[in-house]
Formats: sequence, structure tokens, C-alpha cells
Amino acid sequence: MKKPLVVTVTGAAGEIGYAITPSIAFGAMLGEDQPVTLKLLEIPAALPALEAVKMELFDCAFPLLQEVVITDKPEVAFKDCDAALLIGSRPRGPGMERSDLLEANAPIFVEQGRAINDHASRDVKVLVLGNPANTNALIASSNAPDIPVTRFSAMIRLDHNRAVAQLAYKTGVSAAEVSKVIIWGNHSSTQVVDVHYAEIGGRPALELLDVEWVQHQLIPEVQNRGARVIKLRGKSSAASAANAAVYCMRDWFGSTPPDDWVSMALASSGQYGADEGLFYSMPVIVEDGDPRVVEGLALSDTCHQFLQVTLDELRSERDAVRKYL
Amino acid sequence: MKKPLVVTVTGAAGEIGYAITPSIAFGAMLGEDQPVTLKLLEIPAALPALEAVKMELFDCAFPLLQEVVITDKPEVAFKDCDAALLIGSRPRGPGMERSDLLEANAPIFVEQGRAINDHASRDVKVLVLGNPANTNALIASSNAPDIPVTRFSAMIRLDHNRAVAQLAYKTGVSAAEVSKVIIWGNHSSTQVVDVHYAEIGGRPALELLDVEWVQHQLIPEVQNRGARVIKLRGKSSAASAANAAVYCMRDWFGSTPPDDWVSMALASSGQYGADEGLFYSMPVIVEDGDPRVVEGLALSDTCHQFLQVTLDELRSERDAVRKYL
Repeated sequence: MKKPLVVTVTGAAGEIGYAITPSIAFGAMLGEDQPVTLKLLEIPAALPALEAVKMELFDCAFPLLQEVVITDKPEVAFKDCDAALLIGSRPRGPGMERSDLLEANAPIFVEQGRAINDHASRDVKVLVLGNPANTNALIASSNAPDIPVTRFSAMIRLDHNRAVAQLAYKTGVSAAEVSKVIIWGNHSSTQVVDVHYAEIGGRPALELLDVEWVQHQLIPEVQNRGARVIKLRGKSSAASAANAAVYCMRDWFGSTPPDDWVSMALASSGQYGADEGLFYSMPVIVEDGDPRVVEGLALSDTCHQFLQVTLDELRSERDAVRKYL
Repeated sequence: MKKPLVVTVTGAAGEIGYAITPSIAFGAMLGEDQPVTLKLLEIPAALPALEAVKMELFDCAFPLLQEVVITDKPEVAFKDCDAALLIGSRPRGPGMERSDLLEANAPIFVEQGRAINDHASRDVKVLVLGNPANTNALIASSNAPDIPVTRFSAMIRLDHNRAVAQLAYKTGVSAAEVSKVIIWGNHSSTQVVDVHYAEIGGRPALELLDVEWVQHQLIPEVQNRGARVIKLRGKSSAASAANAAVYCMRDWFGSTPPDDWVSMALASSGQYGADEGLFYSMPVIVEDGDPRVVEGLALSDTCHQFLQVTLDELRSERDAVRKYL
């Protein structure tokens, strides 16, 4: 049997945590032959609910689940961690500006970055879901100087999957037949949905789709979908966010499918005009756990303009949290 | 590619429905090579929330998911259904007696039984989770005279898994090493947790466990665990119930592991003194989709006494809903 991997989940008693922890223990994320130990972090007030999460994980009798540790201490949660899902964050309250949200979350990701630096496995993979995810990933990685920045990512996969699903639905194919979608930039409303390179059943998507539909239906649909889900269920997307994290980590620990890529927000090393170090979503191919940005794609002038907007947003977020970096 | 199977889920916008539908679409229940169509039933008031469930399933971009149908009409939900999870039921309200609960739920399962009879695939498999599950299964199957009664079951797997997990934890092994646990009778507080035949790592459990611990720790823990989870999280078990249903259906559509059995509440044909037709949990071996009760196990006098209590409860439940059968 393989050596167990330690998976750390923060905010684990929240809705996404409740959805994702059984999937991980079942084997959906790291494979049905990979034993796992779960280390679950919460704020002290949520520890009773987290105890219930632990009980239920236990009651699933998962063959792969070795142990469940629950704690409110980052140094315990990140001890020997191989994969970390940073889900917990302060939500945006009434009257809060984006700058207030950045300020409220920064200390959380400073503390967790330091704990990862001091206690996690040296080849840990860290996926940040808590918003503003890209800048929180920047803060966490900046506070983990001993861990390569390539070990951090901010999640854009839900947006990616939403775009894939819309293309599949529109053309009447399975999601598995849609490839090479790109979400560029920030996981925010400035994200850029790009189907120029997308293929559907191996054919260029733009041969099958009307440009009007792409601009006026697809892109707004992907951008506004989260808000529509909240309106209908009274709570934000949890199951689909958990699933996106599972698929993102599965690809990151393994390989992306042949002739395809996924969108991942990695620390830029200057590709596509993004400032070095900014967490910027780009098309990424993963081979045996090693992600590589797909470089040199030609972009339209319009696309360039939109990329500038999302880049400027990421710069202003970085500037707002400069003292935490 | 295999022909898609239709999976119907009732109460699909509830907590268990929200947890189980992505698992099914991911392939956890029927296999990662089995395409599925989901048909989701809710009461009219829950249709907006169900629309959000559909949107999120869509946003997961599951390669196996062919279609999601949402409806408040049983005849639509059960059309061509191959696997049905009857989760939705009226919960027990303040001041409700068990007889009130039976009465409140009976019409739901009459209607669904009829819809299954008239619209489902002839070899459908129906798992009832909505409580009182055993008697609801009796009502549904009684109202589906054209479907063999062997196609219905009430879920006891969560209790089974809870007992397995306790034995594994107590003896420091993986849940995969615990076999031949039995939960007898009704999915209620009268259920009988039986470890006489249980094995841990191939050795008889009773050689490894203290009888005092079994009687005074294990059995009350399994019986009261649901209430403890409710107290801690303020809501009843959802993730672990969903997982139990996934595992139960996976075994039922496939085979139970070699040298093991699972507990399933099937319509008795008189085994172990249960009245013919009552849905009574027993040890069951499944081979290629075909469940068979393990017969002829010798039971202790004490076990016999407990079985009488759970049997009497099931008889009184049946008598209370006689007019619906």
C-alpha cells in the first residue's frame, strides 16, 4: 500500500469543506489507491461543527482514510502536509469594500503561509480557494520563503469548468469533448473567458459557435453564474467549488489529459505581460505533477485589452496588501 | 461507451441530495465508465433551490453526466429510471408521534411507488432513505405490483458503516479490514448491532474485543451517533448518509467484497423469523447485481430477544399503514 498523504483543509466545517472532505477521503482527488490523513483547521467557534464533520467522515468507513485531525492551530493542521486546500476566509460583509476584504483576510494567509513554511512537506501543493484567492495565494507564498512559489496556486477551475460546461451544452456534446478553454487573470469579475483556442470534439470551437453568442451569452453567463446560484439557493456554490478543487488537485498531482490544458492561477514569471510573482491564471499543462504554463499563444487586440484590466486589478490588490508580503 | 443509466433522486435539493448528486455524476456510485442521467424530484416550493443544484452539477463539467432533469412530477422523475434514491420525506415535527410520522409519509411513498410501477425500468433498483425507511419501502413496493419486491430496499448502510468504523478505530485497523458486521431489523433505535460473526483482519472480532465494550460502548454509540451529530452541527447527518447510499448502491449494482457481506433491509421471505414481506435488515451477499440473504446463521438467545423487539416494531408500523398497502 502507498504511504498515506496528508491533506490539510482550512475552513473545513464550512459548506465547501463539508462537501470536499468526503470526496478526498473517498479517493476522488488523489486516487482510489492512495491512503490519506485529513488535517482540518477551523476557527475556535467552529470546532464543535468540525467535530461533527470528523464523526461523519469516520462513519463513512472509507477504506483509504487513515486519520482525521481537527484543530484550530495552523502549526498542527499543516504538520507534514502534502496537499493543502486553503478554503477558509473572511466573507465580504455588508458595506465592506474590496480593500476591506483584502485587509481582513491578509493576516489569515500570513499566518497560514508561515505555518506551511515551518511545518509542511517540502513539496507541498497549496491551492487557495478563499477570496480574493489570487492575492491570498500571493500573501501565503510570500510568507513561505522556504517553499518554492511554484507550489502555490489560486483556484480558477470553477470558472474554467463553467465555461467548458456551457460550450458542451451549447453544442450538445459531453464536457469531456471540450478542450483548451482558457480563463485568464484574476478570479474575479475581471476574469477573461477565452475560447479562441477551444476545441469541441477536436474542431475549433469558433467554427461551431456564433461570436455574438460567445460575447453576449457565454462570457456574462460564466461571470455571473456564482451570483445566480446564490440567488436561487441562498448560499454560494459549494458542491461545484469542491468538485473544481478536486479536479484541479487531481490534475496537479497527476497529468492533464492529452491535447488539453487547464486554467490555473500560478505565480507569473512574466508570461503574457503579467508582473513576475502575481498569481495570474493562464493555460497550464501538467505532466506527472509538474505544471508548465503554455507560452507563446497569440492573443487578439480585444483579448489584450481585457487582460490589461484584470492585470491592473491584480496590481492594485497587491499594492493594497504590500505590507504583508 | 456504455448506455447511460437513469438515476432518480427525490428530495434532491435537501442536504443529502446536495451531497449525493455530485457523487453520482462523478461516477462514485455506478463506476467511472458509466454515463448517467439524473432525474431530480422535489416539492414545488423547493424547485428554485433544485434549479441551483442543477446549475452546480452542470458547472462541475462531469464527463459522465448526460443530462439533468428537474421536476415536481413523479411520473417525469421516474421515467425509465434504473436506480432510485427515495430521500425526500416529511421530517418529524414537534409533538409528532411515530404514528403521525408514518401517516404523514405514507401518501408520498404510495404516489412514488405507483410512479415507479408505471414509468421506471423493469429492473430498477430502489433504495429508500426517507424515514421511517423500512415501512416507507414497504409502502412503495406494495404500490408497485409490477416490479419485483426484490428491487426495493431500505437503507441500513449508515448504521452498518458506523459499526464498522467503530470496530476499526477500536482495534487500530483500516475499515477495509473489518468484515461481517450485521445490523438486524429496523432502521430505528431498535436496530440490533451484531458483531458475533464480525472479523477484524481475518480474526474473529470477539477474540479482540471486550464484551463489556461491545454492549456498553459500541452498541449505544452506533444507536446514538445520529443524535450526537445533530447536536454538534445543528443538522442531521448528510455527507455520511449520502456516502452510505453510494456504497450500498455500488454493491447492489456490482458485488459485495469476497468473504464479506453487507447489511441491507430487503423484503423478508421469512428468514430469521421475520414476517414475509416486512423490510428487515439482514446480512446480504451481492453477486453481479443479485442480492441474496445469508441464511442459517445461529443466533444467541440475547440476540433473539432483541430481534423480537425490532420485529414487533416493524409489525406495528405495518399495521399503522395497512390501508396504504
